[in-house]
Amino acid sequence: MAGSSFGKSFRVTTFGESHGAALGAIVDGVPAGISLSEEDIQKYLDRRRPGTSTVTTSRNESDKCRIYSGVFGGLTTGTPVMVMIENTSQRSQDYDELAITYRPGHADFGYDSKYGFRDYRGGGRSSGRETIGRVIAGAIAIKALDMLGIKVQAFTQSIGNVYAQSLNLDECSENAVYMPDKDAAVRAIELIKEAKSDKDSLGGIIGCIATGVMPGLGEPVFDKLDARLSAAIMSIGAIKGVEFGAGFHVSTMTGSQNNDPFYIDEDDEGLHIRKRTNMSGGILGGISDGSPIIINAAVKPTPSIAKEQDTVNAINEEVKLEIKGRHDPVVVPRAVVVVESMVAITLFDMVLENMKSRMDNVLKIYKK
Amino acid sequence: MAGSSFGKSFRVTTFGESHGAALGAIVDGVPAGISLSEEDIQKYLDRRRPGTSTVTTSRNESDKCRIYSGVFGGLTTGTPVMVMIENTSQRSQDYDELAITYRPGHADFGYDSKYGFRDYRGGGRSSGRETIGRVIAGAIAIKALDMLGIKVQAFTQSIGNVYAQSLNLDECSENAVYMPDKDAAVRAIELIKEAKSDKDSLGGIIGCIATGVMPGLGEPVFDKLDARLSAAIMSIGAIKGVEFGAGFHVSTMTGSQNNDPFYIDEDDEGLHIRKRTNMSGGILGGISDGSPIIINAAVKPTPSIAKEQDTVNAINEEVKLEIKGRHDPVVVPRAVVVVESMVAITLFDMVLENMKSRMDNVLKIYKK
Amino acid sequence: MAGSSFGKSFRVTTFGESHGAALGAIVDGVPAGISLSEEDIQKYLDRRRPGTSTVTTSRNESDKCRIYSGVFGGLTTGTPVMVMIENTSQRSQDYDELAITYRPGHADFGYDSKYGFRDYRGGGRSSGRETIGRVIAGAIAIKALDMLGIKVQAFTQSIGNVYAQSLNLDECSENAVYMPDKDAAVRAIELIKEAKSDKDSLGGIIGCIATGVMPGLGEPVFDKLDARLSAAIMSIGAIKGVEFGAGFHVSTMTGSQNNDPFYIDEDDEGLHIRKRTNMSGGILGGISDGSPIIINAAVKPTPSIAKEQDTVNAINEEVKLEIKGRHDPVVVPRAVVVVESMVAITLFDMVLENMKSRMDNVLKIYKK
Amino acid sequence: MAGSSFGKSFRVTTFGESHGAALGAIVDGVPAGISLSEEDIQKYLDRRRPGTSTVTTSRNESDKCRIYSGVFGGLTTGTPVMVMIENTSQRSQDYDELAITYRPGHADFGYDSKYGFRDYRGGGRSSGRETIGRVIAGAIAIKALDMLGIKVQAFTQSIGNVYAQSLNLDECSENAVYMPDKDAAVRAIELIKEAKSDKDSLGGIIGCIATGVMPGLGEPVFDKLDARLSAAIMSIGAIKGVEFGAGFHVSTMTGSQNNDPFYIDEDDEGLHIRKRTNMSGGILGGISDGSPIIINAAVKPTPSIAKEQDTVNAINEEVKLEIKGRHDPVVVPRAVVVVESMVAITLFDMVLENMKSRMDNVLKIYKK
Repeated sequence: MAGSSFGKSFRVTTFGESHGAALGAIVDGVPAGISLSEEDIQKYLDRRRPGTSTVTTSRNESDKCRIYSGVFGGLTTGTPVMVMIENTSQRSQDYDELAITYRPGHADFGYDSKYGFRDYRGGGRSSGRETIGRVIAGAIAIKALDMLGIKVQAFTQSIGNVYAQSLNLDECSENAVYMPDKDAAVRAIELIKEAKSDKDSLGGIIGCIATGVMPGLGEPVFDKLDARLSAAIMSIGAIKGVEFGAGFHVSTMTGSQNNDPFYIDEDDEGLHIRKRTNMSGGILGGISDGSPIIINAAVKPTPSIAKEQDTVNAINEEVKLEIKGRHDPVVVPRAVVVVESMVAITLFDMVLENMKSRMDNVLKIYKK
Repeated sequence: MAGSSFGKSFRVTTFGESHGAALGAIVDGVPAGISLSEEDIQKYLDRRRPGTSTVTTSRNESDKCRIYSGVFGGLTTGTPVMVMIENTSQRSQDYDELAITYRPGHADFGYDSKYGFRDYRGGGRSSGRETIGRVIAGAIAIKALDMLGIKVQAFTQSIGNVYAQSLNLDECSENAVYMPDKDAAVRAIELIKEAKSDKDSLGGIIGCIATGVMPGLGEPVFDKLDARLSAAIMSIGAIKGVEFGAGFHVSTMTGSQNNDPFYIDEDDEGLHIRKRTNMSGGILGGISDGSPIIINAAVKPTPSIAKEQDTVNAINEEVKLEIKGRHDPVVVPRAVVVVESMVAITLFDMVLENMKSRMDNVLKIYKK
Repeated sequence: MAGSSFGKSFRVTTFGESHGAALGAIVDGVPAGISLSEEDIQKYLDRRRPGTSTVTTSRNESDKCRIYSGVFGGLTTGTPVMVMIENTSQRSQDYDELAITYRPGHADFGYDSKYGFRDYRGGGRSSGRETIGRVIAGAIAIKALDMLGIKVQAFTQSIGNVYAQSLNLDECSENAVYMPDKDAAVRAIELIKEAKSDKDSLGGIIGCIATGVMPGLGEPVFDKLDARLSAAIMSIGAIKGVEFGAGFHVSTMTGSQNNDPFYIDEDDEGLHIRKRTNMSGGILGGISDGSPIIINAAVKPTPSIAKEQDTVNAINEEVKLEIKGRHDPVVVPRAVVVVESMVAITLFDMVLENMKSRMDNVLKIYKK
Repeated sequence: MAGSSFGKSFRVTTFGESHGAALGAIVDGVPAGISLSEEDIQKYLDRRRPGTSTVTTSRNESDKCRIYSGVFGGLTTGTPVMVMIENTSQRSQDYDELAITYRPGHADFGYDSKYGFRDYRGGGRSSGRETIGRVIAGAIAIKALDMLGIKVQAFTQSIGNVYAQSLNLDECSENAVYMPDKDAAVRAIELIKEAKSDKDSLGGIIGCIATGVMPGLGEPVFDKLDARLSAAIMSIGAIKGVEFGAGFHVSTMTGSQNNDPFYIDEDDEGLHIRKRTNMSGGILGGISDGSPIIINAAVKPTPSIAKEQDTVNAINEEVKLEIKGRHDPVVVPRAVVVVESMVAITLFDMVLENMKSRMDNVLKIYKK
């Protein structure tokens, strides 16, 4: 398989290039009976849309989605759901000079090495617009997870050296950088403006929390929940690192610090096994442990910068490059919904996979 | 699929529990014509074997492998290679009291939640011994990569707060902690002894470098080279974070700092496109860029510690636990060869996948 | 995976319902560098289109395809090719009474049992229109196979009890039933008219021949070439049997009759190993043997008939049913291109898979 | 993937060559909580074992299986079940002259074309002994299906031109050819003895019936139940054709003959939708319809015959060949349990896949 599909039971296949006719996704394995409309998907697509604030590119992509299959009478039918956005705002002439030039920090050279040539308009398949298909599938997964009481929320942890100091998730949608800390958001926006006027760009960290996750998700060995989540998140273009719970800090902890003690909690529904801390980030031995799943992902600074750079072209010449066109000085805020989508897709896929783990479950479905 | 397989073209399926009859792997998709002997595999298995130094568990696992299929006349035949180790040293009585107790930091609770019960002897399927199958497959991948001039070497970057300050890879096999820095190794061993006498354990960071990787490996979108490598590495039990190149540092860099400038290099073989820096860690947009691939992985402290811990059991009681048995105070040195194996498996899988990217390649194989 | 994908390296995922907004396919794993236009695909779609003769339904489906991704400058780029047809002629009112009635010979009852409800308009996902996605992918596979000198041609072997007595493949496109025998075609058309006036329908047999297939295609054990081809062909709605070479006749042959003797043939290009007969149908032990691949597939009579039938509905009532709407009295002629497509898809997939069989091949691609 | 795996949720991977060290299978995705012992598997392996009657080869293969993983306390644990048979009776000297000679009707030439060389001892991977892994997995699937009330029984429909005239399934185990008709069995045995004394071999047809199958199994489009079953059955070495229900006879039926009328049946448990006939063989539009699943598979005559044959060798010489060694004059009776196994594996795989079809089912598993 050539890599455009993700998931085993809830299987997403995306298509489309930045300046091609359209971008979208087929989601196969959507269980029948989930209420789904174009609005359900559009609201997530709008979150990744540029042109909505001063901190993103001024490209105005309307990005209206349409459901082409798999929904009947407002419900998913169990057959593949295809959702697509037709491309409208295409100023490909901006990109013509990039036909043979390899942009530093981009996949251009890799694509040419791999395929012999490439669709160079706006990054083609390696464009950030490729994430449209992910958000489409993510919106469907989020609807399904919601029926199970599982919530996924990603947010901007940091931009450059400005870190959120509080974790007020409701605040995220109130500021342009999707930060859960109002004051940090103000400082981050200031920093972005500076970078922009320097013809430069910034990176950051995206956090993600999933609550309501039942224990037992994840498959032993290679399809561990964290292994699948890592693959999901690292497959987003700009991500260079991913960690769970205490993450890289575990390297300097002792076992007695890092082990989360279990205890018995009691509420109206009875006794529950819980953990006093959550160094594990909700995953132990690759299986969810019933605590919130905690993820961090490092986002690199946008490689498309207006500043002059040294590079080469496809005919082995060294050249200077100033990237024109409308580019985000930081992609972190727009990537938040993409991380959220990939986490949701992975979680719902593992929910479906896990159904088959016990013969008890099989009997529960089939025995009258 | 229930998660015991990895890879698409070079496909590893592992089996076995810590105290079951045997552990091993089937590797399907091994191209015909690779020279392969039990010694080729055994030397890697010996590197993950405990009982070889003061810093690892005193369990003496002989772990002699045998090839059961897929090799004829010393060469792989193209059919599945099955390699297995029969279990011999099994003191399962050490584990009897763990039948219903959930060890903190372990997958016990998750397995019970998922399956209703578990093979509790020595961790069963979630034991570190499960990595035997990975090292078997890794040894085969390493032989194949070698024929292509690709070398993979992992090493101990840090243990607790002791970091390697130099990167002398030849030094790794000279010290018990597989560190590329002689002095750091001495200090790390000291630290491990302290942790052991404290009935506690340590974590660390494993680094990995792959050289000789041709540009173009990795598939767009979901099967990006770094996404596949993340899944591979994060599927190792104790890993909690993974990063490439500048990794989490990208979050505080600017685009002009993070973008690696390309330049033209000339040698006897002609002109080459190279990068002046390697912030990308050898991967841009999910495709290898011809530079060395640079990976870091965070390893958590061994969760099995002799120190008394608070926990619960399967019948909802809070209990105290002191883990008996012979456990590593740090798994980092033994996990080095496992990381190396998973990286090699992934790289060779992507080498095979990439063959199909161009119709030119198809014609090269089939046209006379 | 929920079943809408086929192929491993050349991977087709289809979507769409009979009366939904559109039908189409994503083909992932198309090697870069294949010349591809909408015309290349349209000519195969036109062959499955109804309304072109007296023997098919009078529905007029224009079925104009559009390529939405994966092609740049007239060449495939290596990224997923999405091709779609928007639905235009939709008389769904014809189907309203079928909302709760289970048509005999159709999947209606199965879909309701599986999903709880279904898109009942024109068969929804189980409609023959679903094969549009297959023909799209088939057209791409045929173009690629052509570059390798492989030709796939399917034809109508029989309709009812009228069998082609000659095998003049050029004749197929000259008659409305796609038969390689002019006289038989005339008799078959007569028979179809009779069935139509009886408000009944007919079945038949589709043959398929692939020439130029190199020996060595097919993977041992489960992915044998004939196993993959069987899955491909049997996944077409109306097919109830498939056989290779001597097929069901092998059951009454002896080994000495059924074994094809090998001999040495000599031509300008040197010595060749060939077979004197082709009972094997070009496949031995699941691997192509260099002879033409010979396949037969049994097509059932169209289940949608105007004649009154006994059936039941979703509320457990026994009812009488006369199916209205415009239906083919026989689907064999229109299914010919679908069989051809599925065979081509499978063959090209196996061509790509086979590249990885030998380390020699790997070195051929990567070694300078 | 190189073809040694089958199934999506219930996933079988086999390994081993005829004269290698061992043959066996890993079954991943076995739900936890199925009672499983070596005896459960051995009884099916004994059915495919030769040396048990005059009509099979006189090789005495003891073929004792051992479970190496995935079972604890007599129950499957949800982790991969590995079962293996070590090879003991290996007279490979019988095969030495076949090192370079291509046996007619065998895969030898195909393997050499594919891999450049092959393990020629006893057919290597293409030997009938490869089916050991299938029967191992089949035995597990049969145990699981039994818990759901699904029974799979295969039998010898015909040998040469001797056809079973009655269908007394209990009779099968009473005769050496596994025929459901005592008298036909006697005649078939006579025919086999004749073929043997002629140094020749025979083919036949295997039938298979699965009862108790719930409606709704099978996935739309490519993973139709019959498509999956076809792939499963056609992947058995000697099979050249497969058909469902009326099979190839559909080609000469009319729609009104072939459509099975539905009716309402009433019993103690209430109203049921049933079919008056079963031309569909229990599958409509690729989805099970609640009727028994009816399959026929054509088995070719054993290609290894003692009669002199014309053939060629790997150095392009035409040679005469008389195959030595102990070979079955007909493989049909021994292949019966292999067909049964493949059908059971496929059905249970589809049972697991189908669980995910409805959000209702998902909620049934997870909601308290």
